[in-house]
Amino acid sequence: MATLDAVLATIDKGIDASKERLFDFLRIKSVSTDPAYTGECLRAAGWLAGELQSLGYQAEVRPTPGHPIVVGHAPAKRKDAPHVLFYGHYDVQPADPLELWTTDPFEPRLQEGKEGQEIVARGASDDKGQLMTFVEACRAYEANGGLPCAVTFLFEGEEETGSPSLPEFLQQHKAELSKPALALVCDTGMWNARTPAITIMLRGLAQEEVILRGASHDLHSGMFGGPVVNPIHVLAKIIADLHDEEGKVALPGFYDGVPALPEDIASQWRSLDFDEKAFLEGIGLTTVGGEAGRSVMEQIWARPTCDVNGIVGGYTGRGTKTVLPAQASAKFSFRLVGTQDPTKILERFRAFVRERLPADVKAEFVSQGASGALNLPFGSEALKRARQALDEEWGVETALTGCGGSIPIVGAFKRDLDMDALMVGFALEDDRIHSPNEKYSFTSFHKGARSWARVLAALAA
Amino acid sequence: MATLDAVLATIDKGIDASKERLFDFLRIKSVSTDPAYTGECLRAAGWLAGELQSLGYQAEVRPTPGHPIVVGHAPAKRKDAPHVLFYGHYDVQPADPLELWTTDPFEPRLQEGKEGQEIVARGASDDKGQLMTFVEACRAYEANGGLPCAVTFLFEGEEETGSPSLPEFLQQHKAELSKPALALVCDTGMWNARTPAITIMLRGLAQEEVILRGASHDLHSGMFGGPVVNPIHVLAKIIADLHDEEGKVALPGFYDGVPALPEDIASQWRSLDFDEKAFLEGIGLTTVGGEAGRSVMEQIWARPTCDVNGIVGGYTGRGTKTVLPAQASAKFSFRLVGTQDPTKILERFRAFVRERLPADVKAEFVSQGASGALNLPFGSEALKRARQALDEEWGVETALTGCGGSIPIVGAFKRDLDMDALMVGFALEDDRIHSPNEKYSFTSFHKGARSWARVLAALAA
Repeated sequence: MATLDAVLATIDKGIDASKERLFDFLRIKSVSTDPAYTGECLRAAGWLAGELQSLGYQAEVRPTPGHPIVVGHAPAKRKDAPHVLFYGHYDVQPADPLELWTTDPFEPRLQEGKEGQEIVARGASDDKGQLMTFVEACRAYEANGGLPCAVTFLFEGEEETGSPSLPEFLQQHKAELSKPALALVCDTGMWNARTPAITIMLRGLAQEEVILRGASHDLHSGMFGGPVVNPIHVLAKIIADLHDEEGKVALPGFYDGVPALPEDIASQWRSLDFDEKAFLEGIGLTTVGGEAGRSVMEQIWARPTCDVNGIVGGYTGRGTKTVLPAQASAKFSFRLVGTQDPTKILERFRAFVRERLPADVKAEFVSQGASGALNLPFGSEALKRARQALDEEWGVETALTGCGGSIPIVGAFKRDLDMDALMVGFALEDDRIHSPNEKYSFTSFHKGARSWARVLAALAA
Repeated sequence: MATLDAVLATIDKGIDASKERLFDFLRIKSVSTDPAYTGECLRAAGWLAGELQSLGYQAEVRPTPGHPIVVGHAPAKRKDAPHVLFYGHYDVQPADPLELWTTDPFEPRLQEGKEGQEIVARGASDDKGQLMTFVEACRAYEANGGLPCAVTFLFEGEEETGSPSLPEFLQQHKAELSKPALALVCDTGMWNARTPAITIMLRGLAQEEVILRGASHDLHSGMFGGPVVNPIHVLAKIIADLHDEEGKVALPGFYDGVPALPEDIASQWRSLDFDEKAFLEGIGLTTVGGEAGRSVMEQIWARPTCDVNGIVGGYTGRGTKTVLPAQASAKFSFRLVGTQDPTKILERFRAFVRERLPADVKAEFVSQGASGALNLPFGSEALKRARQALDEEWGVETALTGCGGSIPIVGAFKRDLDMDALMVGFALEDDRIHSPNEKYSFTSFHKGARSWARVLAALAA
């Protein structure tokens, strides 16, 4: 453990310089969903490749039909060391609504939070700060004789848009990328500010935009109102029909493949003593919504959903406009669990919409990607070692958790590279990822780097 | 009739110069609902006052809490001539969506249409072109010895936002404005391109914006989706509940005060031989929507409605954002008939919304004005004379029609000045008012001016 201690000491000593490197990274506006930021995504990829090269690693920015992927290779100091693949993403969500940010989302700053200092910026937590915990752990190893494991780095720029280019990329570079036995993924959260977590269940995600069109153009609501169909009303009826009175999704067959929660998992989760009241208070709520009779934890980790993420139609500016709109649209997403089939669900959704179209209303569907849920095996050797490493760093028992979000790449690792993924991340529940004033705990950043140093040592032991 | 013939000849000879004056007026971007155009509204008012002054009339731009009102006074050449008030509005609807305009909405141009030349611009029909038909008729009278009636001019700049400042203004200037016996209003349409119309029924309008708020900020739909209430879903359910399966408005008590259509009116309307198929085809539709079993004409002229004019919530940009929105809002409007009480209806609407709010969702209501329907008396002397004047100009029988839109000022004339209004306008059904590529038939403009010349002569006869 002499080397590990030296590595941890190096991380501690260099943490301010580490933070400055992260700040440089956060200044890059790598919003992947908006074509206006294509150049910024390329800059972020180049910046990362430069970081890896500065550590003496081979690294390249490789083109895809979308945003580029950074691939890097670092040798281990011992020939027989294990080989892991580390995955992160350099793209971020749009910063809007901008007016709700206290300061510029792309000018990172430190602020005092309830758990100590926080780094505030779009991407501070999701995923630039998380990704950099691993890179900084590698940097500390390089200052102390080299890595205990060989590492392949894979940084993509389309995670926030469903990773459309990545599966094809994995196929094309299978020989190069499938050598590692295990993927390490840093895009998940801690159980709480003092308890680390390894995520063993991930929900899937299927997304579809629906555009409804009625009259050939916007009309005066007085001169035409009454006999003319209003696409906003039709869309509202469809959305209303998608849930029943009990909060269940009313799409036929939607619950095919949704398993009952196994008792062993349910009991481990109960032991986590999740505070629903505090969870709700943290987001300004008092009451558990959604499916009647199901807990917050069960709903987020183990139940599927249907949500409208955005809706727009007619006049939405200030004041009024007495318009009968020709068009209305909404972005739908389904979170999936167990063996729910995303393709079938989107087919059924489109049929559900079509069945509800009155005369003269046409629907256009824009598919936005789909991936099923993932349930990772309990009790593998890597999981055991990683748990122990995290237990030692944080001084408490590591939680095994589910995650309501999706990391499509984890499915691709399994499917295309036959590689299990170890999901360890240091985000906190109140990090406001995807929201204004996103932040990352400075402790998450610092102890995150230390955690990875320990995990790498444990995997190589 | 020697003078009238001379006036008509003057209109014919000067029509190109008249058009150039209208084009100047159309270039002013007097969008009343958007505070960004406040200066343009003031410019439009000043322009109109200048027009009246150029005719030798006394004219002033008078301030209001909103956009200014132009008041002008023109003497008649005979002392005992009748006195009329002419009303028009210089404000226009927003031009958006801008990308659907073929050319700049505020750079008027002529184009060849199916009924001859058309003037294309925002406000060409509603109401700048219409208003100028009367001003140009006055101009022709001034070139031929003066007006046969005394005229008070009243041009407001808030018609498109429900005329909030006007009732108070009428009260304040009651002594000055209530002298005329009759109001002439040019903000309505012809029956068709060859048949003039006098509008005898107007629907009322009540508008209310609803903003629903759930969580304290936008959330990640994966990390929070399930137990967290989605304001878009709540809003959609409210909108869906507002109509029953038969297309009737489901607000309790909504139909209180909605009269059955009297047989004499129904029979006059049947004689107009309205072409539903052509009406629907003109707006890209094939089927009569709305209330089951009721005709297009009955629904637009004599039945109330509830429409959502705009809705917005969550992410509405390109691509996807997996967000659970904290807020969703919609602009509702109710078209009213008979003696429906707009205040009661908005109260019931707010109660209807509140009853449907789940725990943790709060509603904010923004009232946007309300006015009841108007039903003008058949067969007054002024109506008889105006019909005859129009019959002579157009060579066909003038239609007595209803109008689905609202002209709140007509209610204010009745209530505050005890003045009936004669609504004569030359807009056509396909003028695309409030929509991209708004136009006004050049024939409407030209024969509109001639029609007013005849109506003034008839009223003074």
